[in-house]
Amino acid sequence: MNVRDAIARRRTPQRFEPDGLLLSREAIEALILEACQAPSEDDLQPWRFLVVRDRARRETLYECAFRDPRVREAAAVIVVCGDSRAWENARSLLGGRIRDGLMTEDEARAMEAAWRDLYEGRPWERALLALRGPCFVAMNLILLATERGIATAPIFRFDEAALRGNFHISDSLIPVMLVCLGLPSTRHPPRPDPPRLTASDVIRHEDMETLEF
Amino acid sequence: MNVRDAIARRRTPQRFEPDGLLLSREAIEALILEACQAPSEDDLQPWRFLVVRDRARRETLYECAFRDPRVREAAAVIVVCGDSRAWENARSLLGGRIRDGLMTEDEARAMEAAWRDLYEGRPWERALLALRGPCFVAMNLILLATERGIATAPIFRFDEAALRGNFHISDSLIPVMLVCLGLPSTRHPPRPDPPRLTASDVIRHEDMETLEF
Repeated sequence: MNVRDAIARRRTPQRFEPDGLLLSREAIEALILEACQAPSEDDLQPWRFLVVRDRARRETLYECAFRDPRVREAAAVIVVCGDSRAWENARSLLGGRIRDGLMTEDEARAMEAAWRDLYEGRPWERALLALRGPCFVAMNLILLATERGIATAPIFRFDEAALRGNFHISDSLIPVMLVCLGLPSTRHPPRPDPPRLTASDVIRHEDMETLEF
Repeated sequence: MNVRDAIARRRTPQRFEPDGLLLSREAIEALILEACQAPSEDDLQPWRFLVVRDRARRETLYECAFRDPRVREAAAVIVVCGDSRAWENARSLLGGRIRDGLMTEDEARAMEAAWRDLYEGRPWERALLALRGPCFVAMNLILLATERGIATAPIFRFDEAALRGNFHISDSLIPVMLVCLGLPSTRHPPRPDPPRLTASDVIRHEDMETLEF
């Protein structure tokens, strides 16, 4: 399936067929790692994934997600997190780049200093770091799943404190969204598409207008 | 090109061939609108795009982007923004859903009340709204461009105040990233890929461990 078709055909199902699909641990890992070829600032790869397949744990996750039924029905749910401290923990990444001859030790030290300047004590910069890359990976993952015939429902609403507590998510990670994977329920056909915004609603061309956006 | 290949083959070029590609206003609009088929919370579509093709305006944008040379070399640069107040401006979206029979007037009013509860006075929820959807669209756009043979460079660093001032971006919009589109420079071949994190670095399976993530 080409990219254009995957984007056009993707639909968020209203409900999943309970346990209608079996997704192995290995299949999910492969999907995530493929999706992780996304770009990120300085290739910091500031993403982490918690895979919830176990039925009892999905039940707990369902409670954290304001009882969205898709969380308990899905074959697996991926909690997509962003690492707001990826820049502090990047020694091993930099070590790899030095070993591969992509960077000298001095350049690595300069990069660490630049990251400290950029991120230390700057919560907005850290939030951007922890959100943009993980969203890229989530979109890739959704399109890869679409291509393989797996339906996906991104869940944007959850009780962050409950999620952190129940799933032992450390303070440096930011839960960004849940992505449910499964087989769409035939008893709940997808709703018709809601109206989309048009070009003039969302696009401004800088060469033409100077009005406020 | 299938999704898997587009994700695997995408590379961020180090430099573009200056004005090496002509992208019409219409071609860029079509690309953006296709990418906008991404999911978003309650289909609020909280994204806006500023298209900068004009050479003089790209020069200004280059200054806002800490002089990243790709901004002045690209055929076009898209400033991807998120609308943190999309929920307040959604009357026309809801009107369309009512007209299409997807929602009653009462349901629309209930949805507006729910949005107020969720977003009003809650800057973190508004930041999530303004970042997640636009990143989805940016990733789609990057993959669609890859499929058409257009190279893309997402630029994550810019002087937000300078960008807002020079490009008249209103306070309710959050600049999320720039996406440069163009022809890669043959004089600056892409750098070898930096080392990627492995499955055990980024994935935790909830059915196995209970350690902190």
